Amino acid sequence: MTDKTCMRMALDLAEKGRGKTTPNPMVGAVIVKNGKIIGRGYHRGPGRDHAEVAAIKNARVSPKGSTLYVNLEPCCHTGRTGPCTEAIAAAGIAEVVVAVKDPNPTVNGRGFRRLRQLGVKVTTGTLRAEATRLNEAYLGYHIKKRPFVILKLAQTLDGRIASSSGDSKWISGPQSLKLAHRLRACSDAVLVGMGTVRADNPSLTVRHVKGRNPYRIVISRSMKFPRGTNLLEANDDRRTIIAAPADKIERFGRSRRANGAICWSVATGRDGQPDLSDFLARAYDFGLQSILVEGGAELATSFIKAGLVDKMYIITAPILLGRGIDAIGELKTKSLTEAIKFDPADFIVSGDDMVFVGYPKGIH
Amino acid sequence: MTDKTCMRMALDLAEKGRGKTTPNPMVGAVIVKNGKIIGRGYHRGPGRDHAEVAAIKNARVSPKGSTLYVNLEPCCHTGRTGPCTEAIAAAGIAEVVVAVKDPNPTVNGRGFRRLRQLGVKVTTGTLRAEATRLNEAYLGYHIKKRPFVILKLAQTLDGRIASSSGDSKWISGPQSLKLAHRLRACSDAVLVGMGTVRADNPSLTVRHVKGRNPYRIVISRSMKFPRGTNLLEANDDRRTIIAAPADKIERFGRSRRANGAICWSVATGRDGQPDLSDFLARAYDFGLQSILVEGGAELATSFIKAGLVDKMYIITAPILLGRGIDAIGELKTKSLTEAIKFDPADFIVSGDDMVFVGYPKGIH
Repeated sequence: MTDKTCMRMALDLAEKGRGKTTPNPMVGAVIVKNGKIIGRGYHRGPGRDHAEVAAIKNARVSPKGSTLYVNLEPCCHTGRTGPCTEAIAAAGIAEVVVAVKDPNPTVNGRGFRRLRQLGVKVTTGTLRAEATRLNEAYLGYHIKKRPFVILKLAQTLDGRIASSSGDSKWISGPQSLKLAHRLRACSDAVLVGMGTVRADNPSLTVRHVKGRNPYRIVISRSMKFPRGTNLLEANDDRRTIIAAPADKIERFGRSRRANGAICWSVATGRDGQPDLSDFLARAYDFGLQSILVEGGAELATSFIKAGLVDKMYIITAPILLGRGIDAIGELKTKSLTEAIKFDPADFIVSGDDMVFVGYPKGIH
Repeated sequence: MTDKTCMRMALDLAEKGRGKTTPNPMVGAVIVKNGKIIGRGYHRGPGRDHAEVAAIKNARVSPKGSTLYVNLEPCCHTGRTGPCTEAIAAAGIAEVVVAVKDPNPTVNGRGFRRLRQLGVKVTTGTLRAEATRLNEAYLGYHIKKRPFVILKLAQTLDGRIASSSGDSKWISGPQSLKLAHRLRACSDAVLVGMGTVRADNPSLTVRHVKGRNPYRIVISRSMKFPRGTNLLEANDDRRTIIAAPADKIERFGRSRRANGAICWSVATGRDGQPDLSDFLARAYDFGLQSILVEGGAELATSFIKAGLVDKMYIITAPILLGRGIDAIGELKTKSLTEAIKFDPADFIVSGDDMVFVGYPKGIH
């Protein structure tokens, strides 16, 4: 078994925690002794054992002299659980192979230093790319000091998200609807603009798959919520957030209509719209590691234009609408060389639809 | 070996003629005797043996008492080659299994009747759908009495075929360029509007793959050809066709600029544009079985709106342009239920690009 094989197993274990670990990362660990796997573990969520500790507890024989493979730098601080570095050394593990450093300010290299202090050999960088992708939101959040922004849109073959009359239900098929809800379940928050609230009155909850509901954010300049707005009236879990200019949001926060919504005041940009960087700064402070931008087109275009999209899902249904509401508006590109490119970029089948998944270049 | 297995072989043989048989169809034939294949053949092009005759000539043993599998109804008329029906009976073949009837007025069921007259058993309908797809242009031409219209466009993820400045070179990648040229090589003619001539000055020849050049057609209301127009000046093979209103085309045809171009006068529709049905009637009379519409957006949109597109290739490159020149314009769809759907519809990978291949519903 090569280091890569063992790390691949750790990554597969880590993956089991998807959608359940936030604000913690997904972590998997495998302990190998004399060429055999003697223990495995993964992090199941906040308050539960870290992967390293789970693997040590699960070990069939003593881990003394073994090698531990883990996709993220072990922690060295006492949070809800004890520091992993101490548990590793106490178990007599001789070597730790790690994929990526944990950029969380409470760790950030200190885990490596502590392990070496304790006499444990440390190797880093095994399957770094895969491990970075796995925890892209967690890592992006701590490195860029802002949430990882995922943009999702469902369009026709000719790039329309709705007919000119505003009809958008449903462009994509049932398989893609599930994908959309899975994306919600794996994001800390879902964001829409006021236009989408007015046109679709969405609930932004997770329905077609299992998973917890994310925070629901509306960003607005106008604050003109229609009567019966689901995001305000169905807010029993207090997960609705309204982001708006200071003057508007203060008055709204004091009104009965707010119905427990969390209110953020956001600076206004030079274009008169809420400043997206300021908005993301608020979201960072609030601890949202990932935000799924669901529309509308105007908000999506603003995020792209501001270079603030980290990952994009474009679901394309096999139909043609002709003129209607464009998925993406003006990006001020003058020629093809100015077009936004992606790396990596993939197309994946989703029922009858095709889904493009890409990371905008020069942003990531 | 089942009938389907044998017919599949005949179809595979027929496929070898792709791009070389027009105005004849692609036909393959397999002769089976005592459970063994004793002969194979396919049609290599005009003036060459028909598939049935080729298979009989290639037979290792006497075809007496054998079964012949062929994807299209055998001919019964004497063209450049003798009638297949007579050759089949003369060879002593006992049974003929056919996929589809040949709608060509010179055949159209008479082949079946003649075979039965000659004492040969005839079975039809084996792998009919596959065989219909294989010769979709030939069959469509004879059944609908107009060319089979294929629309091809290359766009960005957000449905733009060019930036607002008109820059469109190259949206799609090298693999898709090859696909585009393969489509040209397999079409009887390539059609563009005057806007494309003015913007791109295309040659419309086959370059990146092997194959013969199709006819090149420009359809125009204005006839404002810029100096140095490739379609006029590089017309040594006399394959350029200009389609325009009668008054314009007559004068043009007499001018030196025409340079041997074939001139068609086409009626003007109520919208002031050349009438596409009338244009297709001219193309039918000329014998063009398939026309590849390459753009621009206005012409493509007109063909879609008129319900005259039989097959569509939409090549999508993994880039975003934002506002620019839309691939598809106004189709007058008011809601999603009015959107154009496709059956069948497929997505296929082409290098970094994704290609949608679909047959518009309610047209086919």
